[in-house]
Amino acid sequence: MHFEVTILGSNGAIPAHNRYPTSQFVNYNGQGFLLDCGEGTQLQMSKYNIKRGKLDHIFITHIHGDHFFGLMGILTSFNLNYREHPLHIYGYPGIEEIVRTYFKHAQTILRYELVFHSVIADEPRLVFENKDLTVESIILHHRIPTTGFLFREKIGPRKILGLKLEQYQIPIHEIVRIKMGGDFTMPDGTVILNSELTGDPSPPRSYAFCTDTSYTESIIEQIRGVNVLYHEATFLDEHKARAAETGHSTTREAATIALKAEVGKLIVGHFSARYEDLSPLLYECKEIFPDTELAIEGHLFSI
Amino acid sequence: MHFEVTILGSNGAIPAHNRYPTSQFVNYNGQGFLLDCGEGTQLQMSKYNIKRGKLDHIFITHIHGDHFFGLMGILTSFNLNYREHPLHIYGYPGIEEIVRTYFKHAQTILRYELVFHSVIADEPRLVFENKDLTVESIILHHRIPTTGFLFREKIGPRKILGLKLEQYQIPIHEIVRIKMGGDFTMPDGTVILNSELTGDPSPPRSYAFCTDTSYTESIIEQIRGVNVLYHEATFLDEHKARAAETGHSTTREAATIALKAEVGKLIVGHFSARYEDLSPLLYECKEIFPDTELAIEGHLFSI
Repeated sequence: MHFEVTILGSNGAIPAHNRYPTSQFVNYNGQGFLLDCGEGTQLQMSKYNIKRGKLDHIFITHIHGDHFFGLMGILTSFNLNYREHPLHIYGYPGIEEIVRTYFKHAQTILRYELVFHSVIADEPRLVFENKDLTVESIILHHRIPTTGFLFREKIGPRKILGLKLEQYQIPIHEIVRIKMGGDFTMPDGTVILNSELTGDPSPPRSYAFCTDTSYTESIIEQIRGVNVLYHEATFLDEHKARAAETGHSTTREAATIALKAEVGKLIVGHFSARYEDLSPLLYECKEIFPDTELAIEGHLFSI
Repeated sequence: MHFEVTILGSNGAIPAHNRYPTSQFVNYNGQGFLLDCGEGTQLQMSKYNIKRGKLDHIFITHIHGDHFFGLMGILTSFNLNYREHPLHIYGYPGIEEIVRTYFKHAQTILRYELVFHSVIADEPRLVFENKDLTVESIILHHRIPTTGFLFREKIGPRKILGLKLEQYQIPIHEIVRIKMGGDFTMPDGTVILNSELTGDPSPPRSYAFCTDTSYTESIIEQIRGVNVLYHEATFLDEHKARAAETGHSTTREAATIALKAEVGKLIVGHFSARYEDLSPLLYECKEIFPDTELAIEGHLFSI
């Protein structure tokens, strides 16, 4: 099962140095999810060969333009491309008013249904669920209500052991039932227990997306042990006063959260336009949390 | 006096083939004007080294997203960059409601004044004037109210003849007065007429920006003889039924307008995403109007 994140935009509020505002595309085995969609997201999707048709769910962390000014372009292009199946948007209610105001003036009636799901910034909630995944909101601390999103894979089916298939000559039509935990009865009536036939499923994977936020330890328990954490690191440590003033994090703060939450890997992004060279930011993170990588446009991370 | 147009985006409604939605930057001797600002305009301005600080006037032809989804990103970046001087926006009143709705939800109070100037699509009107230029609206025919914009240089001062400066030993402090039409009185009382001292000023230059529109001869008288006409040419001639249906023009229609209006040069753009190779569009235009060029991102045209 593919579980991949492609970085479409890595920059903070003011685009600079050919870096785009925040957006990431999550591909879970062909199901597409957008995490934020700053200006230019649809252009970046084309550039990195991400098919728009795969996208059914867009999560918006907060109503600052660098996290959603690309939304209306995507909605419009879907319409011009004759999309017919619904599109789901998860975010604060203001998003819906902004989108509806535009379509009213453009005199556009969409060919497809736009379904808004309100996110509330009081406590972590389940905002999405299907057979494979859950998505929870993460309460962040920024200048306006802001939530991150935590993708968790559900526990998959048990793994059938190839050797046992052969040993007991198990017919193909029995396999799904055994993967779901069933025993197997031989033609002579002997029952082979599931525990002999299967191994534990792969451990469920998880990805936490935390932007924009100041340093806040209140998120640590919720994200503990995730495979990959994206945490904004807008500023170098020397600019920590500016980070606090604007509701953002420094490199060391992001890395400290990763360390305390015992995550597998840290990706940092939302870089301030003041930094053309990003290597000092990476260096500062690695001093605290060695397995850190920079969010760079076009990079694909496997979870 | 520089009078230049830089193409920031050349594509029609759906961005494709690394072409951006419509936007052009007009530089008149250091004064900056934007004509439309599709998604990604601020990114394109950075790419082509256009200083945002020079920009004081933004003209929006109509409320379709591919002509203004980049507006809010520009307004936001100005704010983050501590802009203090006013910014003027010329367009339909819906633009103001869309912009204000966003800033309300983003809880943003702008540091600078945003001045909206309503454009009305009934007849051509003067929408802007300063000491150097006028800008008139051009009534176009599209699916929703749409206006083009016609930039006309004012007639400049007369040109003083270098030989005469020397012959009559005219002091520097007299020059401005003579350029404005005054005569020169020699120390002995002899009056030298202005007509002897000066030549005619350069003929005023003009640039017409016409997008989006179906073929309409009603614009011809207004744009007759402009130095450069930008006219949309969304489709090849073989797709003229689709052009008519969507309120757009074909190559041959754009070139026919240029021919009938006796313009100096034609630039075509707003290309449909269906065309990756643009050379057939150029070929069809040139068959009717040889001095045609394609709008290509980053190209600078001197008027």
